[in-house]
Amino acid sequence: MTAAGTAGSTQDEVRRHNVSTLLRYVHVHGPTSRTELTSVMQLNRSTIGALTADLTQVGLVREEVPARSRTAGSGAGRPSLVVCPRPEKVYVFAYDIGVDYLIAARVGLGGSILDRRELHRLRGDYALEDVAAHLGRFTAEMLGRAEPGSVCVGVGVAIAALVRESDGQVRYAPNLGWVDAPLGRSLADMLGEYGIKARIVVGNDADLGALAEHVRGAAAGSSDAVYLTGEVGVGAGIIVSGEPLRGHGGYGGEIGHTVVNPAGRLCRCGARGCWETEIGEKAILDAAGHPDGPRSTVSAVVAAASDGDARAQAAMRHVGEWLGIGVGNVVNIFNPEVVIFGGLLRDVFPAVEQQLRTTLLTTGLAAPREQVRLVTPGLGADSTLVGAAERAFAPLLFDPIEVITGLM
Amino acid sequence: MTAAGTAGSTQDEVRRHNVSTLLRYVHVHGPTSRTELTSVMQLNRSTIGALTADLTQVGLVREEVPARSRTAGSGAGRPSLVVCPRPEKVYVFAYDIGVDYLIAARVGLGGSILDRRELHRLRGDYALEDVAAHLGRFTAEMLGRAEPGSVCVGVGVAIAALVRESDGQVRYAPNLGWVDAPLGRSLADMLGEYGIKARIVVGNDADLGALAEHVRGAAAGSSDAVYLTGEVGVGAGIIVSGEPLRGHGGYGGEIGHTVVNPAGRLCRCGARGCWETEIGEKAILDAAGHPDGPRSTVSAVVAAASDGDARAQAAMRHVGEWLGIGVGNVVNIFNPEVVIFGGLLRDVFPAVEQQLRTTLLTTGLAAPREQVRLVTPGLGADSTLVGAAERAFAPLLFDPIEVITGLM
Repeated sequence: MTAAGTAGSTQDEVRRHNVSTLLRYVHVHGPTSRTELTSVMQLNRSTIGALTADLTQVGLVREEVPARSRTAGSGAGRPSLVVCPRPEKVYVFAYDIGVDYLIAARVGLGGSILDRRELHRLRGDYALEDVAAHLGRFTAEMLGRAEPGSVCVGVGVAIAALVRESDGQVRYAPNLGWVDAPLGRSLADMLGEYGIKARIVVGNDADLGALAEHVRGAAAGSSDAVYLTGEVGVGAGIIVSGEPLRGHGGYGGEIGHTVVNPAGRLCRCGARGCWETEIGEKAILDAAGHPDGPRSTVSAVVAAASDGDARAQAAMRHVGEWLGIGVGNVVNIFNPEVVIFGGLLRDVFPAVEQQLRTTLLTTGLAAPREQVRLVTPGLGADSTLVGAAERAFAPLLFDPIEVITGLM
Repeated sequence: MTAAGTAGSTQDEVRRHNVSTLLRYVHVHGPTSRTELTSVMQLNRSTIGALTADLTQVGLVREEVPARSRTAGSGAGRPSLVVCPRPEKVYVFAYDIGVDYLIAARVGLGGSILDRRELHRLRGDYALEDVAAHLGRFTAEMLGRAEPGSVCVGVGVAIAALVRESDGQVRYAPNLGWVDAPLGRSLADMLGEYGIKARIVVGNDADLGALAEHVRGAAAGSSDAVYLTGEVGVGAGIIVSGEPLRGHGGYGGEIGHTVVNPAGRLCRCGARGCWETEIGEKAILDAAGHPDGPRSTVSAVVAAASDGDARAQAAMRHVGEWLGIGVGNVVNIFNPEVVIFGGLLRDVFPAVEQQLRTTLLTTGLAAPREQVRLVTPGLGADSTLVGAAERAFAPLLFDPIEVITGLM
């Protein structure tokens, strides 16, 4: 139903659109009165009532008399019922596969994390089978604590990789040493053993971090936002006019591999002077004189700079300046309302903010620069995990009745 | 009606959407049979008939018996009527304001250029009043040749500038020497004298070039495309998921001012090493040893390189390599199906293509690189002019009945 599409609208399509819009609204904003829904959806009361009845019947929402009205007596007219999502009945599994951690969570409709499991491990090349086995164990534990009669409506997976979305094939995950790993199929096999037949969606970690921050984080309400994430590499999830930038094959957003310094270092991608070679973990540790330190060393460098260590301060200046150059590029290309510093950059940003902003005065054109906010994630360290959950909810939110009845 | 919106759909909205979709289809694809419209719009025959009747009544389309059926007799059943846009009755004015030229055209519904006027001039700082006066004269001439009873439904203007779209204020047009020039208001005054009350939309030349190439040029059918244009500066119009990248304030796409060589030359924007400083007109002329040549000198350099001139060949290698670096950045960020080389780069691209592709092998990540086509514009030198016309048609195409009845 985009402006550029050629398909017309029919009655069925309108009903699906309206049911979808209502469920999405309460999923994002929480319990909402019928009166407010009538107002924000610009539909009449009887239509809202009919849409709510459809969603109630399949168990996606329930209606409550608002707490205040219960005690206020019946003097003030009939109170507007509140439409509530049902997290205890309808949930997704979300997995975040990091280079040195695994996180699994059960997330209810409405976005609350109901249960979670974490495994931290040494960095190294992990086999796909190991990852699937750990996630399987976590999933079994969490399934055992789910309410009887509840239903898993989707599974979302975040990973620092180029991913083929159609089947969850990991095309290239350099930090895990994976090339063409069938993650989607492997997880489908695992989940099938537990009777879970919901759709599995695998996405790039930066894309999912951006999605979560856009839905319920620092970019909520912003149509144009860039979520930067640094782990070993540097990536970006980008929101353009309210929609994620995917690119033709889903490979968009690889901003860590834009050349900013052709006289600089060779990048592991084969090019010279990628942004990642100046602001990535390795660049920070090299500049601080700890070329072989683990990731936690980055936090130590930030702390040392704050304590007056000259070499650590020089490293922070270096990163701040190169962040200012790259963020200038981001600002000039995307004219975003907000740039969010996630992952490793979440730790680094406060220490380099002043240098970054000074450099940005030169690299960013005035008109877009004056409109941008620079912030850390609203969801803290959970952006990618929450993003995986949001992606898992997407099919349900697009066509609620069809998806839930297909799974019941 | 986007997936992320909160407004529900109503019957009126559905009708508007369907009328809009049908008119847009025949505007882009030309005369189309009712049978084909039924198929592409996925609506039934009676709905298509009703929508066509609505559009016919207000004079936007007419129906014809197809030529073949007229001669074939009535043996093969009733022929499907063909729905045709009416360019002679419904048109826009499109203006392209260049640093050394002005072009004005009258463009009919369906996209055909019915009439055009051009003025070529020396480069320099031109006053807004001069530009408005020349365009006024052109407009009067073309109005005099328009069919009686025809109606101007919009005015679109392309200019190499940062533009505030709400009122057509030119915030910054360095090549014309304009800062905060009220172009929209000035043209409205001029057009008012001729009784034209259609809406005026002023847009950035690269954005409009991208729009035209996406609607009816080299990016037709592509959801993700980047249109690069070099005149004095270098800009880009970018299509993401079928929609133009605007950015929060409409300032997006300034890819000429992304830093690619911090050790390079100072850019007129104040930063050092912007892409424009390596591939822009000045960079080409400097490298070829003609620092003060006019634009036409660039074509002479291209020709000289082809004839074996060593300095010209070195200049082309320089530009090809820096194009390869910047196009690599574009490919990695946007994963586009197509990158289009417009404006000055239209002349340069064939001469540097080999060098560009060689560099791109290193700078572009394999997955997105393998998906991109590199081409010159499908609309030749007219991309921005046609884009101005398309932008002018946009309000009519969005809500045909409302807009046309408001102007009649």
